[in-house]
Amino acid sequence: MTDSRTSSIETEDREILRALDDLDLPALTAAAQRLSTAQIVAILERLDRKQQAVLYRVLPKGLALEVFENLDPSLQGDLVGGLKDDAVAALFAQLNPDDRVELLDELPASVARRLLQGLPLREREMTADILGYPQGSIGRRMSPEFVSVRPELTQQQALERVAAHLDDAETVYTLPVTDNQRVLVGVVSLRELLNAAPDATVAELMKPAHWVRATEAAELAARRCADLKLLALPVVDNETRLVGILTVDDALRILESAESEDQARIGGAEPLRRPYLTTPVSGLVRSRVVWLLVLAVGATLTVQVLEVFEATLSEVVTLALFVPLLIGTGGNTGNQAATTVTRALALGDVRPRDLFRVLLREFKVGLALGLILGALAFLVTSLVYDREIGTVIGLTFVSVCTMAATVGGAMPLLASAVRADPAVFSNPFISTFVDATGLLIYFAIARAVLGI
Amino acid sequence: MTDSRTSSIETEDREILRALDDLDLPALTAAAQRLSTAQIVAILERLDRKQQAVLYRVLPKGLALEVFENLDPSLQGDLVGGLKDDAVAALFAQLNPDDRVELLDELPASVARRLLQGLPLREREMTADILGYPQGSIGRRMSPEFVSVRPELTQQQALERVAAHLDDAETVYTLPVTDNQRVLVGVVSLRELLNAAPDATVAELMKPAHWVRATEAAELAARRCADLKLLALPVVDNETRLVGILTVDDALRILESAESEDQARIGGAEPLRRPYLTTPVSGLVRSRVVWLLVLAVGATLTVQVLEVFEATLSEVVTLALFVPLLIGTGGNTGNQAATTVTRALALGDVRPRDLFRVLLREFKVGLALGLILGALAFLVTSLVYDREIGTVIGLTFVSVCTMAATVGGAMPLLASAVRADPAVFSNPFISTFVDATGLLIYFAIARAVLGI
Repeated sequence: MTDSRTSSIETEDREILRALDDLDLPALTAAAQRLSTAQIVAILERLDRKQQAVLYRVLPKGLALEVFENLDPSLQGDLVGGLKDDAVAALFAQLNPDDRVELLDELPASVARRLLQGLPLREREMTADILGYPQGSIGRRMSPEFVSVRPELTQQQALERVAAHLDDAETVYTLPVTDNQRVLVGVVSLRELLNAAPDATVAELMKPAHWVRATEAAELAARRCADLKLLALPVVDNETRLVGILTVDDALRILESAESEDQARIGGAEPLRRPYLTTPVSGLVRSRVVWLLVLAVGATLTVQVLEVFEATLSEVVTLALFVPLLIGTGGNTGNQAATTVTRALALGDVRPRDLFRVLLREFKVGLALGLILGALAFLVTSLVYDREIGTVIGLTFVSVCTMAATVGGAMPLLASAVRADPAVFSNPFISTFVDATGLLIYFAIARAVLGI
Repeated sequence: MTDSRTSSIETEDREILRALDDLDLPALTAAAQRLSTAQIVAILERLDRKQQAVLYRVLPKGLALEVFENLDPSLQGDLVGGLKDDAVAALFAQLNPDDRVELLDELPASVARRLLQGLPLREREMTADILGYPQGSIGRRMSPEFVSVRPELTQQQALERVAAHLDDAETVYTLPVTDNQRVLVGVVSLRELLNAAPDATVAELMKPAHWVRATEAAELAARRCADLKLLALPVVDNETRLVGILTVDDALRILESAESEDQARIGGAEPLRRPYLTTPVSGLVRSRVVWLLVLAVGATLTVQVLEVFEATLSEVVTLALFVPLLIGTGGNTGNQAATTVTRALALGDVRPRDLFRVLLREFKVGLALGLILGALAFLVTSLVYDREIGTVIGLTFVSVCTMAATVGGAMPLLASAVRADPAVFSNPFISTFVDATGLLIYFAIARAVLGI
C-alpha cells in the first residue's frame, strides 16, 4: 500500500539517492522494490543520465517494463541509449503500439529502423499504421488494440468476445459497435452489457457514439474525451470506419503536455521537451532565448517612442518617474484580460466569433478598472506633486487600462481566428504592444494638459 | 452520432439561438433533441440567465437531468432559482451525493436547508457525510456510492456482488477490497476479476491500493489519480477505513478548475467562479481590481527609485529612453523562469527542497541569456548612441537577466515552501520586484560608468 504521507516517500527517496551515490547495488535494489511504479518514475525524472541507467537496471523485469511505459518519451530515448541491444529489442516488442511510436520519434532514424525490423509481423503492422498518421494527430496517439462488437451479437456472445480479449485490449470497459464494413455505429459499456439479459442484442443496448477522426489534432481529441467524461473515445477514418481508441489515461497524458505547452507560451518560452531537472542548462537557454530576443526587439519600439518625446522629457523630468508604473499597470491589465480569454477559449466557453461580445465586455471592464485606479492615482499624485501632474497620471490610467484590457481580450481571439496558438500571442506580446501604445497615450495627455 | 465537424455544430447552435430569440418553443425543442448533452451544456454556458431557463425547460426529462449534472455548479444555482419548487426537489433527489454538495454550496442557506430536508433518509445521510468534510478537501468531492468486496470472496461471489450494484455504484470497474473493519486492504479491477477462475479468491487477485485521505486537498488527490492513470482512487479516513471513491471523471473536473485557477493567478487575477460569458462585467472587475491595486501600489516603488536618481536623469535624459526596454526584458526573463518552475512543481518534477539546484540552474541560464542580449545591446547602442551608453546598457542587460531568472526561479519554490499557491507569487509580482531592482542596478551601473 502506498503511503500518502510525503515524509515516508522522502525517506525512500533519500535511501535511493544514497545507494546511487555509493553505488551500493543491493541497497538500491531493496529500496527500489519498496516503491510503486509512479514513485520510481518520479525519482528517475530527477536523476542525471548515468544514475537513471543504474537505477533502471536494478529493477525487476515486470516493474521495469511498467516504469518504462510511464516515462516521458525523451527519457525513454535516453535509457535506450544506455541499454544493451537485445535488452532494447525485448523491451520494444513489449510496448503498446502507440507508446512505441512515441519512442520511435525520439530515437535516431537508424536505431528506429533497426528496432522496427526486429518486431513480429503483427506488431510491426500495427506500429506502421500509427506511424502513417501525421505528427500531432490523434492517429499517432490512439491505441489500435480495441475490442469491438457487432450489433447483432447477443449479450452472451458479446461477453464471450470480451472474455477472449481480456489480455490484449487497451480497455474492455467501453466497447465500440461496428457493422460488417467496420463502420462505427454505436458504443456499449461493459456495465450496460453486464446489466442486460443474456439474449438481449448489442443493437438494443448500444448508444450513439461520440468519436473523433484520426487526423484531428491530438489535443482537441483529448479535450473532447475529457469534456465528455468518457473512459474511451473511438477514433475513425474518413469513412467512419473504426481504426483505434483513445483511452482516458492517454487523453490525460496528452492534456498534461498541452497544458505545459500553453503555460510555457504564456510565460514567453518554448515548452521543454523533458522534465525540468533533466533538461540541460543549454536546453533551458535555447527554450527562452529566441522569445526573449524577439520581445526585446519589439521593446525597442518603446525606445523610439521615448526618443520622439525626449524634448518633453527633459523639460519635465518628473514625467519619467511614472513610466514604469504606468506601463506596468497597462501590462498587468492586458495580461489579466488575455489570460482569462485564453483559458475561456481552451475550455470552449468562448469561440472566435464571440469577438465583438468579448471586445465590448473587456472595454467596459478596462474602463471600470481605469476609473478606479485613475481616481486613486489622481488623489495621491495631486497631493505629493501637483494637480496638473495628478490630472495627467489619472487620465493616463483611465485610457491605458481601457486600451490594455480591450487589446488583451482581443489578441487570443484574433490568434485563434488565424489558427495560431492563442497562448503564443499572449502575455509578453501584449506587454510589449501595450508598453509602446501606453507611452504614446501618456505623452499625448501630458502635452495637452501641461501645454508643452 | 455526434458529428465532429465544427460547421454542423455551429448550425445547430444558430438554430437554437434563433428559436430562443423568437421564443419559438417547438423549433427549440426539436433543435435541442438533435444535440448531445455536452453540446447543450456548451450552449447553456454561453446564454444569459433568462435564455438558460427557457432552453432548460424544453429538454426531455432524462436529458435534463444529465445536462444538469454536467453544468458548472454556479449555473446549476442560477437554474434552480428559475425552476418551480417541486421540480427542484425532484431534480435534487436524483443527483449524486457529491454533485448535490457542490450545488448546496452555491445556494442560499435557506434553500439549501429546505432541499436537504426533502431528501429520502439514506440520501440525506450520504449527503451529510460529505458535507462534514472541510471545503476544498477531497472528502467533499468523492462519491460515497462504491462497491467494495471482501478478500475472502470467490471470483463468482464478487461478480454477483458487482451485478447487484450495477445500477447504483459510481463505478464498478475498480473495486476496493476491505476487511471486516472496513479498512482498505487492496484493490481489484473488474477486468482481472473477469479474467480469473470462478473459485479464485479476491485475496489472490487483489493488488496493493493507492489511496488518499478524505481530508487531503481535492486538487492533490485529483492529480494523484491522473498521475497514476487510475480509473478510480479509494478515499479513506484516518484509520484507513474506506469512505468513498474518486473517479477519473470527477478528478478531471477538479483538475480543470485547478488549472483555470493557476492560469488566472499567473495572469494576476482571481479565478472566475463561472464561465466567462455568463460572468457579469462587475464580476470580471472584482476578480481583477484587488490584484491590480496591490501590484500598482507595489509598482510605486519604481517611482521612488527613480526619484532618488532624478538628478542623474535630468543630467542624462537619454538614460530614461531605455527604462521600459530594460525592465521589460527583466520582467520577461523572470516570468520565463517562474512559469517553468511553477509548472515543474505542479507536475512534481521539482520539489521545494530542490531550491538550491534550481537557483544554480536559473543563475546559469540567466547569465547566459544576459550575455547574449547584453552583447547585442552593446553593439547596437554603441553604434546608435556612443560607447559609454552602450557599456551601461550591455552591462545592465547581463546583471538584470541574471537577477531576474534567479529570482523568478526561486519565487515559486519559496511560495510552495511556506505552503502558499506558487502561482500567487508569480509573474506579476516578479515583474514588480524585478522592475524596482532592475532600476537600481541600471542607475548604479550608469553612475559608475558615466562618472556622475
